[in-house]
Amino acid sequence: MNDLKKIAIVGGTGREGFGLALRWAKAGKSVLIGSRSEEKARAAAEKLNARLGQALAVGVPNSLAAHQADMIVLTVPYQGHDLILQAIREGAQGKIVVEVTVPLAPEDPTQVQMPEMGSVAEETQAFLGPGSPVIGAFHTVSSASLKRLDQPPDHDVLVFGDHLQAKEEVLRLAELIGFRALDAGPLLAGRTIERLPALLVWLNKRYQKKDISFRFTGL
Amino acid sequence: MNDLKKIAIVGGTGREGFGLALRWAKAGKSVLIGSRSEEKARAAAEKLNARLGQALAVGVPNSLAAHQADMIVLTVPYQGHDLILQAIREGAQGKIVVEVTVPLAPEDPTQVQMPEMGSVAEETQAFLGPGSPVIGAFHTVSSASLKRLDQPPDHDVLVFGDHLQAKEEVLRLAELIGFRALDAGPLLAGRTIERLPALLVWLNKRYQKKDISFRFTGL
Repeated sequence: MNDLKKIAIVGGTGREGFGLALRWAKAGKSVLIGSRSEEKARAAAEKLNARLGQALAVGVPNSLAAHQADMIVLTVPYQGHDLILQAIREGAQGKIVVEVTVPLAPEDPTQVQMPEMGSVAEETQAFLGPGSPVIGAFHTVSSASLKRLDQPPDHDVLVFGDHLQAKEEVLRLAELIGFRALDAGPLLAGRTIERLPALLVWLNKRYQKKDISFRFTGL
Repeated sequence: MNDLKKIAIVGGTGREGFGLALRWAKAGKSVLIGSRSEEKARAAAEKLNARLGQALAVGVPNSLAAHQADMIVLTVPYQGHDLILQAIREGAQGKIVVEVTVPLAPEDPTQVQMPEMGSVAEETQAFLGPGSPVIGAFHTVSSASLKRLDQPPDHDVLVFGDHLQAKEEVLRLAELIGFRALDAGPLLAGRTIERLPALLVWLNKRYQKKDISFRFTGL
């Protein structure tokens, strides 16, 4: 972790990605905000640096972000996810890829449309190949709570994957920004965990809230 | 709810079913413990009554339990679930059926084997027909915590179903025994929620605990 100099947030202009970028930058990490649009990436990085009063983030196109980073975090809509994977494949070789993408149903975010392979995490791993260990994490994190920098997050993070050392690194990366992070199993745990954000969207609507998540008990 | 005299716990000799029976009996409900074996049903009822010092539970075969009850709770292993449904079908007509059954993979309880129809709850609804509204609930309840009668449960209950009035009744039945119970959506939410116990089994193994569950935050 001490050697981990740069984290690329591919899709870092979105709410979830921006929130994670903000937290990691605040914790002292150097952050690359990636977007399909270089202009949007730069604008998001400027916004982040202005908020923290320090030049910790740089905005670049997704493929460049992947090339320049030591670790890559994917926070993109599932629609268009395949094109993003193509853009980062080369740059991601030899690096941990943290998959945060949720396969929400396009017409109804209280539902999911799971990939044929079972989960996005498994699909990404199959596409990138064994040179890029894929770890799933942060799916159930509330973007609203990420932005409240004066408060530690009040919910847990589930981290899953088949590469144990990579999983360990991602657990520590979550703890770095104040989360209790739990090892939630192998990569196929994504078949369950990637469904949870749709349940949270449902609960938020039902109870007119904005950032429902959960904390484990009995631990 | 005031009219709800008798709750049948089909599979009430198992840990989860017995724990729920114990809590409801303690809250003043009359409980029918159902089992395929009348002898085992009676033994469980006697154990419950001895624990509470009051004759609140009766042990009967599953089909009779369904006939005599005002509401039916299914807490059975998924293997053999189809035979149980046949046994209770007639008795369940016109009654709410609370589906607690989890489709754990027989060879590995950290995994699930989801029914072709998507979830156990949907399968049960299709089998029993519209005369018996099926509501899913209590899947993620720790049986160990149910038995600690001196402590209120420290985790939430998710309740889901398509019949709104029946769902409301089950929400209140969960609140009666000290849970915060949340309306988690329509019956197809079972496709997500029925997977969660396998995740909890995994976390319990990983962290050497026995009754990990969760409580929602941001509510």
